[in-house]
Amino acid sequence: MRQQTGFLKLQTKRQGLTLLNLELSNWVLKSGISTGLLTLWCRHTSASFIVQENVDPNVKSDILNYLNELVPENRAYLHNTEGLDDMPAHIKTVLTQTQLSVPIVNACMVLGIWQGIYLFEHRKQRHIREIALHLIGQ
Amino acid sequence: MRQQTGFLKLQTKRQGLTLLNLELSNWVLKSGISTGLLTLWCRHTSASFIVQENVDPNVKSDILNYLNELVPENRAYLHNTEGLDDMPAHIKTVLTQTQLSVPIVNACMVLGIWQGIYLFEHRKQRHIREIALHLIGQ
Amino acid sequence: MRQQTGFLKLQTKRQGLTLLNLELSNWVLKSGISTGLLTLWCRHTSASFIVQENVDPNVKSDILNYLNELVPENRAYLHNTEGLDDMPAHIKTVLTQTQLSVPIVNACMVLGIWQGIYLFEHRKQRHIREIALHLIGQ
Repeated sequence: MRQQTGFLKLQTKRQGLTLLNLELSNWVLKSGISTGLLTLWCRHTSASFIVQENVDPNVKSDILNYLNELVPENRAYLHNTEGLDDMPAHIKTVLTQTQLSVPIVNACMVLGIWQGIYLFEHRKQRHIREIALHLIGQ
Repeated sequence: MRQQTGFLKLQTKRQGLTLLNLELSNWVLKSGISTGLLTLWCRHTSASFIVQENVDPNVKSDILNYLNELVPENRAYLHNTEGLDDMPAHIKTVLTQTQLSVPIVNACMVLGIWQGIYLFEHRKQRHIREIALHLIGQ
Repeated sequence: MRQQTGFLKLQTKRQGLTLLNLELSNWVLKSGISTGLLTLWCRHTSASFIVQENVDPNVKSDILNYLNELVPENRAYLHNTEGLDDMPAHIKTVLTQTQLSVPIVNACMVLGIWQGIYLFEHRKQRHIREIALHLIGQ
């Protein structure tokens, strides 16, 4: 049994979803661990993870639109010094995931056929985002 | 230290909650691992996990009603070819959990006395749902 | 490779957020495990975890206010025998996290610089809350 740790750095372009499947799969393959548990930790409070359908791009648009309506910018937030989109970004992070742990079997994540693991940038501007990775197994 | 992996297949009946405690407990017992970490991964994007009270069935009804109101079918979703309940099911999955990891102590999940781990079917029709299981420990 | 398990007991004062960083860091340090995975499990259905900004206290107030508006007390809940704040507390738990797993590197949680791990008391009254801890690594 052994462990592998690492960090993944990503430049997001704007509010929206970045598919991580390929980068994560490659990182797992390189580790040489074929059975185990992969954990992702997003080191930010205005970006997060979701797991969603990776086929119809409309699904992604609907999720963005829905969350923008659920957590609008034009509310009376007390924390408003970092831009109108900052406090909504914090709340969307609370309502989604800062961490995911995926079992690894046969050197692959056990995702369903339609599942994509996405980094969700909640801010309007581009940002550099860092994800901590941990893999334990053999 | 060792690992056990497996898959759990369930037939859901309709939109609603299926308690997994017994099936998970049995799987952990059979593994022979008494201290460890159990991870569940739901391999779908319109079903998910929640942890909730397992006593008063009204709690389950209130959660269903609340989420149906929070994520209504009659919104202008772009993704609408798979049924009115499909896009709401994706969004409800985003707002709940695709993965849970539960510590195992004395061969039992460390659940609180009232905690049930539920698979949440978000579609109106019955579906076969698959859960990947991973246990590491000794 | 080895494991450490334990329980953390906290007295919450009222609805709101309790920062856990220091207590968790100390527990990890005492374990002597420098690379691994720390898992927290909240043993309740009306309290949960969030990861959020630990600088401006207004962020915390905004999150409380937002969730109180999103999940109001004055809805027609079927489950209403344990107080007006009980069913909203269950729903807020569903929308946040019952479990978190944080990678440990150099004997520290890999948190981002602004990240706080909070226990979120959703009930109006003070409660004793118990968190199960599990750490695996070396």
